[in-house]
Amino acid sequence: MKPRHLIPLIALVSLSAGPIAAQDGKTQAPPPSPSPGEIAAAAPATDWKDIAADDLLVMTLAPDAAGKLRKVLIQLLPAPFSQGWVGNIRTLARAHYWDGLAIYRVQDNYVTQWGDPEDDEKTARKKPDGLREMPESDYEAPFPVQARSAALAALPEGVGGREPYGGSPFFFQGWPVASAVLSDTPIKDAGSGKAMSGKAILAPAEQKAWPVHCYGMVGVARGQRPSTGDGSTLYTVIGHAPRHLDRNIALAGRVAEGMEHLSSLPRGPGAQGFYDDATMRVPIVSVRLASDLPAAEQPHVQYLSTESASFARYADARAHRRDPFFLAPADGADICNIPVPIRRRP
Amino acid sequence: MKPRHLIPLIALVSLSAGPIAAQDGKTQAPPPSPSPGEIAAAAPATDWKDIAADDLLVMTLAPDAAGKLRKVLIQLLPAPFSQGWVGNIRTLARAHYWDGLAIYRVQDNYVTQWGDPEDDEKTARKKPDGLREMPESDYEAPFPVQARSAALAALPEGVGGREPYGGSPFFFQGWPVASAVLSDTPIKDAGSGKAMSGKAILAPAEQKAWPVHCYGMVGVARGQRPSTGDGSTLYTVIGHAPRHLDRNIALAGRVAEGMEHLSSLPRGPGAQGFYDDATMRVPIVSVRLASDLPAAEQPHVQYLSTESASFARYADARAHRRDPFFLAPADGADICNIPVPIRRRP
Repeated sequence: MKPRHLIPLIALVSLSAGPIAAQDGKTQAPPPSPSPGEIAAAAPATDWKDIAADDLLVMTLAPDAAGKLRKVLIQLLPAPFSQGWVGNIRTLARAHYWDGLAIYRVQDNYVTQWGDPEDDEKTARKKPDGLREMPESDYEAPFPVQARSAALAALPEGVGGREPYGGSPFFFQGWPVASAVLSDTPIKDAGSGKAMSGKAILAPAEQKAWPVHCYGMVGVARGQRPSTGDGSTLYTVIGHAPRHLDRNIALAGRVAEGMEHLSSLPRGPGAQGFYDDATMRVPIVSVRLASDLPAAEQPHVQYLSTESASFARYADARAHRRDPFFLAPADGADICNIPVPIRRRP
Repeated sequence: MKPRHLIPLIALVSLSAGPIAAQDGKTQAPPPSPSPGEIAAAAPATDWKDIAADDLLVMTLAPDAAGKLRKVLIQLLPAPFSQGWVGNIRTLARAHYWDGLAIYRVQDNYVTQWGDPEDDEKTARKKPDGLREMPESDYEAPFPVQARSAALAALPEGVGGREPYGGSPFFFQGWPVASAVLSDTPIKDAGSGKAMSGKAILAPAEQKAWPVHCYGMVGVARGQRPSTGDGSTLYTVIGHAPRHLDRNIALAGRVAEGMEHLSSLPRGPGAQGFYDDATMRVPIVSVRLASDLPAAEQPHVQYLSTESASFARYADARAHRRDPFFLAPADGADICNIPVPIRRRP
């Protein structure tokens, strides 16, 4: 057999549902364990959650060189995360702000970025009224320690809680997030006032969580501090998770479908991947909220509930691959190596 | 100022070399900290190591639609890692095995794969004599615990040793690797022979390390077990690090230059990204060892020594971003978020 396939094209599926008692009384080998994809595909309909039409952007790009249509669906983050920027993005979409603008930056192993490539404020696209300026503090959202602990406890072994970044990662309503429990402020000795070793549990008002920069997450580009970006310029991650951007820039959503239209674009030859040559730009035909489209044109998309038993099995299988191809399970997976399954509603 | 740039196009560079004593005797604010890229760019020539011409593959792809040349440089792994497969790859390159074959699989957020797209063994490209069949045990290489400890100790805080995957990651001669210290076999009570809690330190013969699947790493595709692949079909990682492939498939090198020619290809519409439509395939013009090219055509490439002080500063800056754009350093970085700097020899 030619070693053509890095992973078998069709996973072996046993005809038997479980171990079978052989004639000598011993059990035969169990059937091959399902792959993560097979677990997700077998999840009951109740484990899939509809994405509301108001939380879904439909971005239509100019056809590619072969004349093929390019549609990208972007799911917006739910409360309590980034709602100021998410609101701005809805305002911009309703104003048709992005129509006729472009993708103008693609940096390898980093980001694809779109918005107004025009640098001159006099000729730049006018923005709609009502955009809010959000504070940097909104890079995090209030999140009680108990909710975090419950979410972490629901994860299988090897997932969540053990990563080099500040904060423990987990899943919340379909999203990869992280939070910290310990304060950066050292504990002080009550008598002398001197800093002691060890760190305090965060006060309730300081208990926060934040979305993390996994592949396909969509963020709000910004300049140097203190601007936080208004949502008119967006980017998506097209390489290894740049987790150093967490809490330094607002995330607003993720690509739910059509990621290949953003990840496979030519890398920009300019510094940081900018398309200095304007002919490389990819024109944006339109960006609409699905809820503003005629009912017949609204895409119906679902994600696998990260609070479901199916997701727990899926995450466990990502961390401990037991399907036939694998010889040595990794015994763990970082949060961005467990992409949340998304599908069209059947 | 328009928030056009996700990261400033040109980082602020202070005119002063360090803190300046002000007239009131206090020091002024220090100049902005250099970015990781600036640290690498400022590294002395002695911190850069030449990649030997025998360790460098030059893959030439058919020109793109615009007629532009596409060259990809691949650095092969050094001993003690994967040397059987690396030897096979040299044999295949010297036999001109890949000339006229193709890239025929691009799966989003996973891999780009090349070799012989022909599935029929009768019409498939004939392979050169002398290819070795390597055992799965060679997915790991002997690596003494002391060497691992020294490598880990040389890393800055927040880098190495704290990841969800089995094994602690570190850098070895320019490469991201990992190793485990504890045995999977439980310690047994000397008297009763019963398994006790806790794990034993691996015996010297079992002390191993292995290269890890970061963005741009090049691996040896294989079928189902027990085949390990002979090196004739290769892939590179074009998305988030698929660390579950570590120790399940052989790595043989990494893309040192020209990654954008592999990462920006159209994703295959077939299952697992295969180009079922043969017209999508990207023809390979030639693959040569740099050492087999005329001297004038040999590329001279260097990597930043991961044993150098410059690399320690670079890795520290990746884990604790202090350059002006960043507000909240991540306090850590996973091994694949610290890409080893590679450049043409100046």
